[in-house]
Amino acid sequence: MSGTEAAVAQVGASGTLSADPAETYCRVREHSRALAAPLSAEDCQVQSMPDASPVKWHLGHTTWFFETFILTPHARGYVPFDPAFRVIYNSYYNTVGDKHPRPERGLLSRPSLDRVLAYRAHVDAAMRAVLAGTTQAAIAPSLRALLELGLHHEQQHQELLLTDVKHMLSVNPLYPAYAPIGEAPARATATPTPTAGWTRFTGGLVEIGHDASESTAFAFDNESPRHQVFLRPYQLADRLVSNRDYLAFIADGGYRRHELWLSDGWDRVVREGWQAPFYWRRDDEAKGASGSDGAWREFTLRGLVPLDLDAAACHLSFFEADAYARWAEARLPTEAEWEHAAAGVALQANEGALHPTAPDRVGLTQMFGAVWQWTASAYLGYPGFVTAEGAVGEYNGKFMCNQFVLRGSSVATPAGHARRTYRNFFQPEKRWQFSGLRLAKSL
Amino acid sequence: MSGTEAAVAQVGASGTLSADPAETYCRVREHSRALAAPLSAEDCQVQSMPDASPVKWHLGHTTWFFETFILTPHARGYVPFDPAFRVIYNSYYNTVGDKHPRPERGLLSRPSLDRVLAYRAHVDAAMRAVLAGTTQAAIAPSLRALLELGLHHEQQHQELLLTDVKHMLSVNPLYPAYAPIGEAPARATATPTPTAGWTRFTGGLVEIGHDASESTAFAFDNESPRHQVFLRPYQLADRLVSNRDYLAFIADGGYRRHELWLSDGWDRVVREGWQAPFYWRRDDEAKGASGSDGAWREFTLRGLVPLDLDAAACHLSFFEADAYARWAEARLPTEAEWEHAAAGVALQANEGALHPTAPDRVGLTQMFGAVWQWTASAYLGYPGFVTAEGAVGEYNGKFMCNQFVLRGSSVATPAGHARRTYRNFFQPEKRWQFSGLRLAKSL
Amino acid sequence: MSGTEAAVAQVGASGTLSADPAETYCRVREHSRALAAPLSAEDCQVQSMPDASPVKWHLGHTTWFFETFILTPHARGYVPFDPAFRVIYNSYYNTVGDKHPRPERGLLSRPSLDRVLAYRAHVDAAMRAVLAGTTQAAIAPSLRALLELGLHHEQQHQELLLTDVKHMLSVNPLYPAYAPIGEAPARATATPTPTAGWTRFTGGLVEIGHDASESTAFAFDNESPRHQVFLRPYQLADRLVSNRDYLAFIADGGYRRHELWLSDGWDRVVREGWQAPFYWRRDDEAKGASGSDGAWREFTLRGLVPLDLDAAACHLSFFEADAYARWAEARLPTEAEWEHAAAGVALQANEGALHPTAPDRVGLTQMFGAVWQWTASAYLGYPGFVTAEGAVGEYNGKFMCNQFVLRGSSVATPAGHARRTYRNFFQPEKRWQFSGLRLAKSL
Amino acid sequence: MSGTEAAVAQVGASGTLSADPAETYCRVREHSRALAAPLSAEDCQVQSMPDASPVKWHLGHTTWFFETFILTPHARGYVPFDPAFRVIYNSYYNTVGDKHPRPERGLLSRPSLDRVLAYRAHVDAAMRAVLAGTTQAAIAPSLRALLELGLHHEQQHQELLLTDVKHMLSVNPLYPAYAPIGEAPARATATPTPTAGWTRFTGGLVEIGHDASESTAFAFDNESPRHQVFLRPYQLADRLVSNRDYLAFIADGGYRRHELWLSDGWDRVVREGWQAPFYWRRDDEAKGASGSDGAWREFTLRGLVPLDLDAAACHLSFFEADAYARWAEARLPTEAEWEHAAAGVALQANEGALHPTAPDRVGLTQMFGAVWQWTASAYLGYPGFVTAEGAVGEYNGKFMCNQFVLRGSSVATPAGHARRTYRNFFQPEKRWQFSGLRLAKSL
Repeated sequence: MSGTEAAVAQVGASGTLSADPAETYCRVREHSRALAAPLSAEDCQVQSMPDASPVKWHLGHTTWFFETFILTPHARGYVPFDPAFRVIYNSYYNTVGDKHPRPERGLLSRPSLDRVLAYRAHVDAAMRAVLAGTTQAAIAPSLRALLELGLHHEQQHQELLLTDVKHMLSVNPLYPAYAPIGEAPARATATPTPTAGWTRFTGGLVEIGHDASESTAFAFDNESPRHQVFLRPYQLADRLVSNRDYLAFIADGGYRRHELWLSDGWDRVVREGWQAPFYWRRDDEAKGASGSDGAWREFTLRGLVPLDLDAAACHLSFFEADAYARWAEARLPTEAEWEHAAAGVALQANEGALHPTAPDRVGLTQMFGAVWQWTASAYLGYPGFVTAEGAVGEYNGKFMCNQFVLRGSSVATPAGHARRTYRNFFQPEKRWQFSGLRLAKSL
Repeated sequence: MSGTEAAVAQVGASGTLSADPAETYCRVREHSRALAAPLSAEDCQVQSMPDASPVKWHLGHTTWFFETFILTPHARGYVPFDPAFRVIYNSYYNTVGDKHPRPERGLLSRPSLDRVLAYRAHVDAAMRAVLAGTTQAAIAPSLRALLELGLHHEQQHQELLLTDVKHMLSVNPLYPAYAPIGEAPARATATPTPTAGWTRFTGGLVEIGHDASESTAFAFDNESPRHQVFLRPYQLADRLVSNRDYLAFIADGGYRRHELWLSDGWDRVVREGWQAPFYWRRDDEAKGASGSDGAWREFTLRGLVPLDLDAAACHLSFFEADAYARWAEARLPTEAEWEHAAAGVALQANEGALHPTAPDRVGLTQMFGAVWQWTASAYLGYPGFVTAEGAVGEYNGKFMCNQFVLRGSSVATPAGHARRTYRNFFQPEKRWQFSGLRLAKSL
Repeated sequence: MSGTEAAVAQVGASGTLSADPAETYCRVREHSRALAAPLSAEDCQVQSMPDASPVKWHLGHTTWFFETFILTPHARGYVPFDPAFRVIYNSYYNTVGDKHPRPERGLLSRPSLDRVLAYRAHVDAAMRAVLAGTTQAAIAPSLRALLELGLHHEQQHQELLLTDVKHMLSVNPLYPAYAPIGEAPARATATPTPTAGWTRFTGGLVEIGHDASESTAFAFDNESPRHQVFLRPYQLADRLVSNRDYLAFIADGGYRRHELWLSDGWDRVVREGWQAPFYWRRDDEAKGASGSDGAWREFTLRGLVPLDLDAAACHLSFFEADAYARWAEARLPTEAEWEHAAAGVALQANEGALHPTAPDRVGLTQMFGAVWQWTASAYLGYPGFVTAEGAVGEYNGKFMCNQFVLRGSSVATPAGHARRTYRNFFQPEKRWQFSGLRLAKSL
Repeated sequence: MSGTEAAVAQVGASGTLSADPAETYCRVREHSRALAAPLSAEDCQVQSMPDASPVKWHLGHTTWFFETFILTPHARGYVPFDPAFRVIYNSYYNTVGDKHPRPERGLLSRPSLDRVLAYRAHVDAAMRAVLAGTTQAAIAPSLRALLELGLHHEQQHQELLLTDVKHMLSVNPLYPAYAPIGEAPARATATPTPTAGWTRFTGGLVEIGHDASESTAFAFDNESPRHQVFLRPYQLADRLVSNRDYLAFIADGGYRRHELWLSDGWDRVVREGWQAPFYWRRDDEAKGASGSDGAWREFTLRGLVPLDLDAAACHLSFFEADAYARWAEARLPTEAEWEHAAAGVALQANEGALHPTAPDRVGLTQMFGAVWQWTASAYLGYPGFVTAEGAVGEYNGKFMCNQFVLRGSSVATPAGHARRTYRNFFQPEKRWQFSGLRLAKSL
């Protein structure tokens, strides 16, 4: 996987296409295939819940994106691989026409995985022909924008592919692993995690967001326009909330004390019987035992493993993150506070790590590459935000309702995909993403 | 009703208790009874949907509030009217203990309306004894805060009582009226509504919110603290969107064009078959006819009446307001923009009007007393917001999730209840409140 | 109530209209009013579940039946009381046109109870005019058939009125009583219930069902035609299963042993957490105590009372009756076995008893007037059964699916309504009727 | 497939195991594999609705049956293939312990199809060892009973495998075929279907059911005991209702006339929008056209094909069959009438046909091998029916509720599986089985 990572990192480094767009295209596309490589056709078939999609669908849909938005309108004489795929692999673009119902993606045993891979090869060949000989400088701006959007879209689905596979494996009582434990990268450190310190910010009138007029780097439309926000003085915890921290919350009755929760969150706790993070499992033998910390295991992409106490707590909903923060007499940062703090922080990718670990140094750490961090900010348009025309305009704006913003990136985020201005967003009850939290306080 | 209104207006005038707290208490409480007076015991019994409550429950619950938070802890020797009421009339205060399930409030034929009125008399007598001889100056601050909270709480339920009764009557195929048409106040004007103009604001770093440290006037906790917000230059429409405006949106395919809607809103339009505002009904005889504007009637508290084209459009969800604004190439104002614009606007109450009318003058109008105005702002805590300790702390903070802020007040808001800093909030799909919209644009 | 009972018993005695149809009509109709007399307008308003109807609706619908099927087609110049009632009080007659949705019957605060009583008076006056001077001999056969159907229909709703009121009161945490305990009829006996013996039948080719060609007595269409059935030798328990019997089933793990239950029944037990008959309540003080029999109370129309161990077990679903029988190494009787056994048994009514008691003698007892008895027979048409033409044909036949037959009658059945050939029917999971069981065994 | 068929036919011929139980075992088991042979691992993975199971699950569950009920208790030293399979492949046997939830069978990508086939090989080897050298005469009666039950159980799942695959393929917008059209057996006849005549029966006291004491042939427990039933004179239609017949019902408003339907059926028609049999599809091009018969296609295991007007109507629910019969002024036969009529009819299998065709001769035809025929009989225990002890007792008895009996067999029934006394059963709304109807009339 290393060659791919290097190339993708190249995209990441400049935040844009490398000098050779065709090469970038091929490397990003190859990474999707590499992620699916450990999986059988059956693994790629299953849709384990309506929120998730089958791996096969991810592989087809990302291909459909290039076919629909680049090849069909821009490549002369391009012949679609299969007209039926226009409906099957449309996710949510009403402008494009009919869609196969989302909860029924897992019902399609045909096209087979082999045929989807042939679809990828067909589209990739056509894309290579389009990009042949094109340099970064020469590429038409409209094509270039669509190409970059398509590649970042593919990278988003690379992360979803991992989170969806994880969920699918987790509902299997056999708890199969995506990757063998032996492949785990060496743990960065065996030394105890440093106590979390705080980093202080004076706030004031600051700017956040992507400045499309000043930068040629890629960003999604929802990161614009750059604008001013007034911040009171605040501080951020140097590291993420760890499993050890979160166990203390549970031990203190965190899931039984309504006063710690938002009303909708408490309803969810009661109705769904939440007692711990999404993928924690009590060891069967330990049931009825003393309830010591050792009783918990965590399901990871490497299977069911003992809980790593110093690793970042993961697969938390916004409701859990918010309740934890209230219990800790702190709060979640706003997205503006987070972005302002991230200004000087280096981007970091942990592709292949598959699960967060403990921080490996002191100071403001784990901003990127561990878990997405819930913020206190509802996902809304920035002042002056305008949705793009046409189908591509359905990308972000229409979801600005009843979701909260997450910042940073995770172990499942491909190299080169993270940005300091990136706005990820999910509904507050969702738990299957690599999501955790960092505490904030007002000064 | 006029005596009551005068007294309540007195509360409103000062934004706080009048010189004689006992008199204020009696007048606010009496207003609830007056609102229920046109209704039979059967009318007061029915709960027409889980969002709504029976009138009888409103009358009991507001009484329970004074009994639970003032009389039981603070009035020596107070004997609760009926111990069972502690559970039956608890709305959502987990701290207070068990609650009767909200969707089952309409199942309780006992206690009877008569007994609930006796409960009110019992509690009112005890409250009068507590307040006897107390002047505004002499009243203990903690008691005073609870008294004001209780009275504003009662006023909130006065508005809900009207919206809930309206819904209950609307599901009856007989379309009964709450008040006869003959009682309608004289229409302010028969002259055509002026074309909406725009009022411009330069923005900048402005302050919004209630300053608890500087003001003795009452405000809910969610209006604090006062804080700075940076606003870009903007303009607000001088008047609310009217039924005539909204008909143009419908005629232009507003309910059939997905691109105008948020994704969750479009799902709702399709699933529930939305085609017009909540209480609009097509005239049966007109079905299949040319679809002229005259075909629509609107259900009001005075029964089913021809649509008043110049009146403010009403009973819109946030989704509809947002889609309308997008169609009109404008947007909803943020709550900060709205509050900043309201700084110089006189509060206005339309108690007894029961339905919005056309604006009666030019300039920035209908900010208060017509319909609540959806804003683009999610309902979240202000910077530095802290929830109060104990049961009273469950009043506002725990609902800060998946709701949008409405500003202003409506024809159903009791006199003296509105404030420029008031933050009303509902989920974006809700339609049974007196809710509409005012357009905004960036400059 | 005694005068009414006498008259209604007169209907029962002959199984048909008395010599004076007008008098019979008035007495049956008056009984409905008498049943509603202890209730407030609020009590008559509430619909506590979709299966149940408000008392006010029962009073209106039974009146609608006479207006729709007798007065409108047969009474010259009859003017309907209110055209809107045609829809509001239609239960399930598609032939008659639109219906108000069943689960929304409780939402109609208007028409008021007073107006429904006026409706009854209006229709009764018109009916009296139709029947004036008519004798049993002179009445036209078609009118007579409709009149009898209308009266038996009214009696069915009299039983439903009581079962529905009981449910409505049971969901109120105050557990109000329909009738004071003091009004309870003297218990028949304080002597211990005799041990249940068995009555044997040799079976063979027997006849069951109503013979419409030979009898002028009234019967519903589903009781015809009389036909031959072959029965193996069998025996029936002399008395109904008592609460004491049923407690032994519970104590032996009846609700925890899947092997005793039909698959659909077990799903219901698990999903709804069944642990005892529908209206049994554990005494709060006794929770956590030794679980002695004294811990149970039963909600009755006279309020929450200690469980009467010798009374017939009541408010059981078919699933519970079937599981009990399997546990007792017996089975439920078929409806043919039951009817064959009932041939020589006197009809008995317990109007006003409101709750079953212990049997008062030895031999085959409690066939009528205690609780309806679940049979092993699915509710299907008899051989040669034909549905009547028109709206009246919707009375019985269209419900012949997924229901089981109950035989006998209950304490809630009005005097004069029971018949040996009567086929009552409900879905197997229903529990709110006065339903219990009698054991059977093959010989 | 012909070798298998021959062997299985041998079972069918005698209604029991052939002289060589091991050979019979192998041939029945091999047939399951043969049915799955045209399918990919992805096809075998999908569960398209909770009623259906993945092919992979059928292959595993039938194997689990032999492992659990024969090998584990009876084969010394047998080592289960994988302890986890005990839960994963338990269908509904509460006695055996935990079950994987039925609606989640399609979520298990592991074990893979390859591993399930290895499981089959492991169990088959152990079974062959148990049966080695055993002759029909020598085999222990208890083992023989379990072996026959296991084989007939496997054959039931062979039919379900085909119906479930058909459903899975039908929800795919590509409408893939299970078998190519070219493989279809030659149509029996191109001559017009003869008009349906009637065959008359005098009825009387007849016997139906399997006589376990007199016969060594296999039958399920629900076919016993043999018992007497009294039948009135009746006649059965010589052939099944055809697609041509059913089109006339549709054209006459069959799906729009409430009076033709049972109440529960009509609710289903309205709620689910039924307009034709389950797998009929209107040709897209023909929409809005004259609605001629040619507009309909039918999805079959050979793909979407033009409707064969003379073939038996198929994939009808009981509700549709019942409504059709009422429209045709006839009725469904009872199961006793059907079985009595079948006494002299030869069993016929159409393995491999995959879809019903027209009758190929006159007289009473299509009793077996076309479609299962809904009867008017609820699925209940015969007089004297007793459930077997232990887990095997969960096979049939616990489902005797809210289902109707179907008689005969279908094109999907394996050779050797049908019996004249066979009682198939499904809920009245189910449509995915090969189910149709034959008319009956009383004389």
